[in-house]
Amino acid sequence: MNESGTSRIEAFSDGVFAIAATLLVLEVGVSTTSGARLGHELLRIWPSYLSYVTSFITIGIIWINHHHNLRTIGPADRTFMFLNLLLLLDVAFIPFPTKLVAAYLRRDGEGPAVIAYAATLLLMAVLYTIWWRYARSGRRLIGPSVSEAELRAIDRGFAPGLPLYLVVFVLAFFSPLAAVILTLALAAFYLPSATLFAER
Amino acid sequence: MNESGTSRIEAFSDGVFAIAATLLVLEVGVSTTSGARLGHELLRIWPSYLSYVTSFITIGIIWINHHHNLRTIGPADRTFMFLNLLLLLDVAFIPFPTKLVAAYLRRDGEGPAVIAYAATLLLMAVLYTIWWRYARSGRRLIGPSVSEAELRAIDRGFAPGLPLYLVVFVLAFFSPLAAVILTLALAAFYLPSATLFAER
Amino acid sequence: MNESGTSRIEAFSDGVFAIAATLLVLEVGVSTTSGARLGHELLRIWPSYLSYVTSFITIGIIWINHHHNLRTIGPADRTFMFLNLLLLLDVAFIPFPTKLVAAYLRRDGEGPAVIAYAATLLLMAVLYTIWWRYARSGRRLIGPSVSEAELRAIDRGFAPGLPLYLVVFVLAFFSPLAAVILTLALAAFYLPSATLFAER
Amino acid sequence: MNESGTSRIEAFSDGVFAIAATLLVLEVGVSTTSGARLGHELLRIWPSYLSYVTSFITIGIIWINHHHNLRTIGPADRTFMFLNLLLLLDVAFIPFPTKLVAAYLRRDGEGPAVIAYAATLLLMAVLYTIWWRYARSGRRLIGPSVSEAELRAIDRGFAPGLPLYLVVFVLAFFSPLAAVILTLALAAFYLPSATLFAER
Repeated sequence: MNESGTSRIEAFSDGVFAIAATLLVLEVGVSTTSGARLGHELLRIWPSYLSYVTSFITIGIIWINHHHNLRTIGPADRTFMFLNLLLLLDVAFIPFPTKLVAAYLRRDGEGPAVIAYAATLLLMAVLYTIWWRYARSGRRLIGPSVSEAELRAIDRGFAPGLPLYLVVFVLAFFSPLAAVILTLALAAFYLPSATLFAER
Repeated sequence: MNESGTSRIEAFSDGVFAIAATLLVLEVGVSTTSGARLGHELLRIWPSYLSYVTSFITIGIIWINHHHNLRTIGPADRTFMFLNLLLLLDVAFIPFPTKLVAAYLRRDGEGPAVIAYAATLLLMAVLYTIWWRYARSGRRLIGPSVSEAELRAIDRGFAPGLPLYLVVFVLAFFSPLAAVILTLALAAFYLPSATLFAER
Repeated sequence: MNESGTSRIEAFSDGVFAIAATLLVLEVGVSTTSGARLGHELLRIWPSYLSYVTSFITIGIIWINHHHNLRTIGPADRTFMFLNLLLLLDVAFIPFPTKLVAAYLRRDGEGPAVIAYAATLLLMAVLYTIWWRYARSGRRLIGPSVSEAELRAIDRGFAPGLPLYLVVFVLAFFSPLAAVILTLALAAFYLPSATLFAER
Repeated sequence: MNESGTSRIEAFSDGVFAIAATLLVLEVGVSTTSGARLGHELLRIWPSYLSYVTSFITIGIIWINHHHNLRTIGPADRTFMFLNLLLLLDVAFIPFPTKLVAAYLRRDGEGPAVIAYAATLLLMAVLYTIWWRYARSGRRLIGPSVSEAELRAIDRGFAPGLPLYLVVFVLAFFSPLAAVILTLALAAFYLPSATLFAER
């Protein structure tokens, strides 16, 4: 009965992250059944590739960050587990707005599609921030062997996340395509902060 | 050959829980292909969001409970493994009635849809109760280091589950929407009892 | 570099078994969109439920057996890993004929549908037998701590599997429904032999 | 905070490999709803079976290789994790061109379909080579206990991979069917090198 709650949270989270990322490919498809135009169709659906790559890397980055943060945490409490469940609920939802972006980008309806996508990612950033703040404030759930310097390094890595996803959300109302590209850039930018720990 | 049967059960169960929860998003979709009305359509499909959130949190809670109970159990026997398989069979089925609720809530057919949903959850509660009673009665499969107080704490957490899912089932015949909302509330209520152990 | 090959095989196999079982629910669906007839439709699709339950329990049983057998095996060799991959290839294919049974049972086409289903399961039994015989004959891959009595107990459990799936296959040509029901019964029969080890 | 980065990479990678392989079956389907012609239809869709088997074994082989290589690696750095994420992004994409091959082989459009398939596999081979070269060159991430002989054995196994997938890609422009069959043969050829370690 004395296993840390963290390993159980990790197993469930790992499953959800990996499955959500891998399900993204189901949204990629061709709408024509005419073989003669397949080559053309495969080029025409570039928004599917862009949204696939953006969502896959974003989920991968969240996953790496999530693991990194969890490692600083000792025994979890009920609130933390509930916040984690809400975070996963949002992450597992990403394939739906990704499908919308694939279907509507550069067509009528791209506005609502990308707004839904950006809203899902903004909510993810909000839930992630709450989840981490809850564990970190006053070192509520932080393990005793974790130094303040390590926590501050994580905080620095997180600081730009929420504001940047807010920028993506606002941008979605003006230029849906730019918002998607910024999301992809954001994921690429996050990786260094996410994996800083790997070098130490 | 001396590995406890529990870890094997856990691995299979973990996979099924995480996959069933993450597959739920595949049921969310828009039925129009007109981009002009996409914004409106995204609001119109709120039953999809409600059923997604309800089923995701419900599966998450069952998963947390399942892990908590398994930890009290020593070597499993054949009957326990078969009961566990039946429980997972029901959990893995949840995406189907969830899809029905998403498609039919607040429309013709919401009655049968929500009754099917509530029946699946009621059966889950019944199977879960049998599964746990089998292991717990006379401490048949309970590990020697688990105290009676711990078992009683789990029992107290379980006591309201079966009657409440029965209420949901009956309510589904009269007010489908209320039955879905009660299911969501029930999942939120269960979390505390499920995670009590995390604080000890 | 000295990790046993078995744990790697187990991780991949576990994933495939759990995902294949959980994907089965995606094949369950209603073909009508009229809400007024949903209640009737939910009863009409009973072959979907029957094929879902049959395939889920069958995959669960294969999974339990697979784990049990793997535990007797020491370091794996390349042939064993290739045979294991072929076995998983067949197991992961089960959702397709399951979908056929759901769609065609008790309708025109039930013959080919159930024959395809039975052929997939028969091939599974053949591959499983080859996989196990390869490891077991002359104790080629059997760990030194495993007794002959244990191996003979496993053999006894396996003996009826291949002939019975052959009976199912032949029966599919004459009575498709009976073949599906026998498959379900076979899975229930297999559980005891599969989990014998759990009691020792 | 001192867990090796490799185990985290392994867990995510394992999930993606197993899920991508198991999702392949969702692409197999019959397009007719007439039960009378189901038997004929099940034979007509042989390209679905061929592409399913080819992709399943290919993913299985990549997965075995990936595990084998990871085992030689000590603590990972950020670049390695990013390369790994790109590799998984490509592997998880395989079900899409597999679906194209299933739908278009031996019909109009088979050219673009198989070119897309071969391009995905060629990109996989390129990313895999970069991923491994990055870790291996100058023993940048290689664990101290790994001998040069072991590394050279892995290199020998890898040497033919990239050129052969390039041949498959070029072949796809001239004979799509031959390109798919060569891909299947390539996977079967890779297994020995992939599992060499299992015998040592």
